[in-house]
Amino acid sequence: MSTESPLSSVRRQVQDIPAYPYVPSRARIKLDQNESPYDFPAELKEKAVQRMLERPWQRYTDLNTTELRSAIGRLEGWDPAGVVVSSGSNVMIKVLTELAGIGQTVLTTDPTFAVYPLEAGMLGAELVKVPVQDDLSLPVEALKKELASRGPGLFVLIQPQAPTGHADRPEVVRDLVEIAAAHGWLTVIDEAYYQFSGTNYLNLVREHPGVLSLRTFSKAWGLAGLRLGYALAHPELAAQLSKLVPAFSINVLTQSALEVAMEHPGYVQQRVEENARERDRMLAALEGHPHWKAWPSQTNFFLIQTPDDAAAVRLLEEHDVVVRGQKGLPVLGDCLRVSVGQPADNDAFLQAAAAAR
Amino acid sequence: MSTESPLSSVRRQVQDIPAYPYVPSRARIKLDQNESPYDFPAELKEKAVQRMLERPWQRYTDLNTTELRSAIGRLEGWDPAGVVVSSGSNVMIKVLTELAGIGQTVLTTDPTFAVYPLEAGMLGAELVKVPVQDDLSLPVEALKKELASRGPGLFVLIQPQAPTGHADRPEVVRDLVEIAAAHGWLTVIDEAYYQFSGTNYLNLVREHPGVLSLRTFSKAWGLAGLRLGYALAHPELAAQLSKLVPAFSINVLTQSALEVAMEHPGYVQQRVEENARERDRMLAALEGHPHWKAWPSQTNFFLIQTPDDAAAVRLLEEHDVVVRGQKGLPVLGDCLRVSVGQPADNDAFLQAAAAAR
Repeated sequence: MSTESPLSSVRRQVQDIPAYPYVPSRARIKLDQNESPYDFPAELKEKAVQRMLERPWQRYTDLNTTELRSAIGRLEGWDPAGVVVSSGSNVMIKVLTELAGIGQTVLTTDPTFAVYPLEAGMLGAELVKVPVQDDLSLPVEALKKELASRGPGLFVLIQPQAPTGHADRPEVVRDLVEIAAAHGWLTVIDEAYYQFSGTNYLNLVREHPGVLSLRTFSKAWGLAGLRLGYALAHPELAAQLSKLVPAFSINVLTQSALEVAMEHPGYVQQRVEENARERDRMLAALEGHPHWKAWPSQTNFFLIQTPDDAAAVRLLEEHDVVVRGQKGLPVLGDCLRVSVGQPADNDAFLQAAAAAR
Repeated sequence: MSTESPLSSVRRQVQDIPAYPYVPSRARIKLDQNESPYDFPAELKEKAVQRMLERPWQRYTDLNTTELRSAIGRLEGWDPAGVVVSSGSNVMIKVLTELAGIGQTVLTTDPTFAVYPLEAGMLGAELVKVPVQDDLSLPVEALKKELASRGPGLFVLIQPQAPTGHADRPEVVRDLVEIAAAHGWLTVIDEAYYQFSGTNYLNLVREHPGVLSLRTFSKAWGLAGLRLGYALAHPELAAQLSKLVPAFSINVLTQSALEVAMEHPGYVQQRVEENARERDRMLAALEGHPHWKAWPSQTNFFLIQTPDDAAAVRLLEEHDVVVRGQKGLPVLGDCLRVSVGQPADNDAFLQAAAAAR
């Protein structure tokens, strides 16, 4: 091997960012990635693979993913010309950063979903993070100040918020979106968990052509393994966004499976209801805990403040339960982020939690 | 709808770039995307979907795609720590532009594979294109001059070249790679079609830590519908590249299918051999054509110079054959790019071509 450096041309901003912070665990009960605890129904898996078998695998898929976008349009009551799909929301976050972040500003809260700051940092956007309030609600006044004084750029509003699970009041969200629009920001309302909270901000997307909603099949639909995210936007904005999404990026297998899912959406509501029951049961059971303080949530996960997140993660792992440690969050400090699982898994978690004394 | 603009924060560089230039055709005989003319073998499709059915679809896939990277490492004789996978080579080209192009230089030939200039333009890299020589070979002296006087950045070397199908002499490629390495460029050797040409530049990747090979399952493997590209690189470079590839981006379906493909690689060599026979038969049949001049090729496609590419595309479409028009290429002018199909499809193409008088 030569003495040449492999990194001479690698941009400093990439080198300076650490890799995506996720370490898999061997624990059996997986409550660490806000996944659905249930697989796609077996009869729908069968239908999906039959459709895959009927289609050619050697051909590039439709460049414009016309059928998938039409199906999403029907599902959401949205003009397919305003639907953009990507192989996971993570890809869309990268593309949004490319669209409106490079050399401009990315404004978000602290905490926020980790991928926004990572992409902003690596791609060379100025990142501005405003700490949430003590009750985890949006820092409205501080955000307004930033919206009025910075930009152009990307304004990231996650509703309900991740990683806190807090849903803000709709009039607060409207207020911020209007100010962002008035100042020419591109606003993404990241609605990854909206089915769980019962919120829906498509009205704001309809009213403001510079606002889009980012949604996913990974959470309420329970299809994280298939990787499909989508944006609902004004067609003119969608056309620009589409240029940056890699061509042909939704493969024939995913298209087949997603079509089947959208033809049989009935299972989603049942799962949302079970999630709410189980989440509230878990939160109630944690109420008297001597050291852990759980926060209310409108999603399929919740935060627990602990004296030491690493110690809590280790304790749970000894009980075969894996959750996500969140060290030193603004406002909250050390936290666990716990996904709501199947009832038996949640029982196992609660038993392990009771050992933390 | 308000009078706000949807594009106030959309970067000018994105707005200025046209969308990816591909318009689907309704013609039955598809010779326009350099795809394999044969589907993945039926018995392997069955094996692949069985594996998909056994796996959970609601879980995120392995962040580090460990198994897939290990399988590719075994196949290629390459350290899995130096393997990076992405959902299609197009994604890797975007990521490479992010790694070494933004605010720096992307140096390539003219013509080149269309995605490199598109990403360079949209992401804000200075794009430098050097016309190939009259015989379609690499413009060695002109490239050397640019390599010595510009940079840092990304040097794009496609072998065999796309869209010309020309394979350069290995000593020419080595010469350019060595000069690029000496000047600190990140060099991507895009080997999308290497199985067809019998070339292989992993020796240069081994010798130079700033050089990587980009490969795909879309061409010789005949799996364009599955979207999988990969880079083989020095582990230190691979680690930086991996930061920019969206997490969890290879879905459970693709992983299952690709594992099966790599367990049964035997079909690839047969297809490469049939491709060579058919390609050479087509080129021989075109030799006496009064208006069209076909160029030799080391890939699964070839170029034909025509007086007017749009007229030629229309004529072929009337015969139910779709090829790719390439207007005004440097050196060549108007061309058709024709993929090698199944024998009967190639016959249909040749019949239609005979009508172009």
